[in-house]
Amino acid sequence: MPDPSPRFVYLDHAATTPVDRRVVDSMLPYWLDDWGNPSSVYSAGRRARRVMDDARDRIAQVLNCRANEVVFTACGSESDNLAVKGVAQAVAEQRGWKHMVTTTVEHHAVLNACRWLERHQGFSVTYVPVDDYGQVSPEAIRDAVRPDTALVSVMLANNEIGTVQPIAHVSREVKRVNPRTVVHTDAVQAGGLLPLDVQELGVDLLALSGHKFYAPKGVGLLFVRRGTPLVHLLSGGGQERGVRAGTENVAYIVGMAAALDLAYGELDQRVAHVARLRDRLIDGVLRAIDGARLTGHPTARMPNSASFTIAHADGESLLLNLDKEGVCASSGSACTSGSLEISHVLEALRLPEAEARGSLRLTTGIGSTDADVDRLLSLLPGIVERVREVTPSLVGVRG
Amino acid sequence: MPDPSPRFVYLDHAATTPVDRRVVDSMLPYWLDDWGNPSSVYSAGRRARRVMDDARDRIAQVLNCRANEVVFTACGSESDNLAVKGVAQAVAEQRGWKHMVTTTVEHHAVLNACRWLERHQGFSVTYVPVDDYGQVSPEAIRDAVRPDTALVSVMLANNEIGTVQPIAHVSREVKRVNPRTVVHTDAVQAGGLLPLDVQELGVDLLALSGHKFYAPKGVGLLFVRRGTPLVHLLSGGGQERGVRAGTENVAYIVGMAAALDLAYGELDQRVAHVARLRDRLIDGVLRAIDGARLTGHPTARMPNSASFTIAHADGESLLLNLDKEGVCASSGSACTSGSLEISHVLEALRLPEAEARGSLRLTTGIGSTDADVDRLLSLLPGIVERVREVTPSLVGVRG
Repeated sequence: MPDPSPRFVYLDHAATTPVDRRVVDSMLPYWLDDWGNPSSVYSAGRRARRVMDDARDRIAQVLNCRANEVVFTACGSESDNLAVKGVAQAVAEQRGWKHMVTTTVEHHAVLNACRWLERHQGFSVTYVPVDDYGQVSPEAIRDAVRPDTALVSVMLANNEIGTVQPIAHVSREVKRVNPRTVVHTDAVQAGGLLPLDVQELGVDLLALSGHKFYAPKGVGLLFVRRGTPLVHLLSGGGQERGVRAGTENVAYIVGMAAALDLAYGELDQRVAHVARLRDRLIDGVLRAIDGARLTGHPTARMPNSASFTIAHADGESLLLNLDKEGVCASSGSACTSGSLEISHVLEALRLPEAEARGSLRLTTGIGSTDADVDRLLSLLPGIVERVREVTPSLVGVRG
Repeated sequence: MPDPSPRFVYLDHAATTPVDRRVVDSMLPYWLDDWGNPSSVYSAGRRARRVMDDARDRIAQVLNCRANEVVFTACGSESDNLAVKGVAQAVAEQRGWKHMVTTTVEHHAVLNACRWLERHQGFSVTYVPVDDYGQVSPEAIRDAVRPDTALVSVMLANNEIGTVQPIAHVSREVKRVNPRTVVHTDAVQAGGLLPLDVQELGVDLLALSGHKFYAPKGVGLLFVRRGTPLVHLLSGGGQERGVRAGTENVAYIVGMAAALDLAYGELDQRVAHVARLRDRLIDGVLRAIDGARLTGHPTARMPNSASFTIAHADGESLLLNLDKEGVCASSGSACTSGSLEISHVLEALRLPEAEARGSLRLTTGIGSTDADVDRLLSLLPGIVERVREVTPSLVGVRG
């Protein structure tokens, strides 16, 4: 980003990523040269459709599914909404089942879709709590499943604390007690860094968002296993086999496929790179900051995610002071930034308030460097000290 | 498009448009340089938010509304769905009103949203018929409005036959009999060529889609007049003031604003150019083809739209033969291409089947040339002749 002084350090790749130059290059022809409407019958339209089909094929290989099980959407939130509302309403109509199971640490796209079902569709939803690492027990999910459970929705990786959920195990347990219960996983935060083989995961639905893996903001997808009951949310033309109306964003679909190809073609190298820098961040912060604690699971966590609580230091103040030095970090999810409340995820961990207020998330990316880590580690101790000096009077938690 | 032989002639700008090179250039920085998440609190996020706010301001000037009355979406269909379902459900919840009024010639995004309300929300919908030109009478709309009419939805211009509806008159009549009835107009087909002053139009909601005016496919907007009851469709984060969750497509939003600026900055020239070529098409086709008839209104029509029926000639065959010569044309809307049924719009015009099967839509754009028109006019008579020779056996309409 064009901000020469102070030096720009981006450690918030969980919020969004830059678009890979190769991804931009892959999209350009579909605005300028080959911009036909994929629904048109003439050759320029058919070319656009072939390009989209090709993207779908490549994505299906990454997910290990059939091409016609991939539905393109405009974002991860739309994918999650389509999954949760689309399945819940379809199953309610078909069988009268109106119960669903999820966890207390899901993204708001899932949680608020659940609340919508409770409020508008007469659903009852069981919110299964997590352990102190933010992980849910597959047995607890299983025990919550009832004969009328339409859907179970458990995220693959948490956006705030990086904890990875044992989805394959969850799917097996759910199917064991109710084979007709549909299993959805919100894999938005995992996309580009965790394996997404839907057969291994055993899920019926999986949501992804392009801008988490170096594709643009404004494109996502939903894997929908063949035979899964689903009603559309957007009515209109017959695009995406009737599941999602609207002229297709051919360029971004091509870009998302290119970005997934790049990510999963060099997955091991990417994971090794971001994890090495993440480990340097975790070690460095825990070593340098008294009262810092890792949040989320110590090992079952996103390879790029270092998240902490820093006792007696207001998280928002930490961020603003880091920002003054050109460092981008987060106190949780970008979607709820600016809110003064403790996030529902940190609440679910049952942390003391004096700790939960000092939340700091650092997430590395493929462009991150050791110099970025060095810079963060050199700045943070002084910033924490300054913030702690003013924090008591602000939040009144120090005794 | 890269199709050197035969010469490429694109006369289907109602289906989609190429992205203006200047629009692409306006978007590039927001993938490669300034790609922050607008929800992030640090400066890179705040910059993204400012860029989006600036785009909203510029769009508000074109629409003559407040910036916070513009909601960004992923396409025209989403905008129409949000308008129809979002208002209908909000008014039903607030006041128990469950009636709506629309016309028989709306886009499927509106019509299928209406059917969804009928099926899932207990709404009753009055579909007001149109005259032989495809125009609706404001008085007929008014007469259909009841004390419990939540919403009236009438398109600004028809996508298949180009007829422009008297929206300002419709709005006045509706508000006269029920001031609390919300008026929506689907302006997707009109965007970039007709004035969109929402005060002049008197509407509460107006939907646009970027790819109809040289912005990319995958971005749209909905004008929502302050105070209009509206529930969201996509649940999740608080983006777009809670009306539309999902990380914003900053680049496309910038591109859409740039494209609108370009279109309305040179509206008179654009309209004059596309209308002159359209008139040449209309005159030429009616003169050269026996049995050709203009569909839609003779004067109240989109400046770029020439649409016909060609008796005893199968429309699909016309298109495929034109395509062989490198000419892109349409038989109606791109969204329902490939369907063998007569479109609902042509059905609403009560044309004899032998005519309605021979539908041909030619729509000009800012890049269209006299040479394009010449080419079409030189090819069409021979193609019609050839198609007519085989049409009787195919569709059995000739005596």
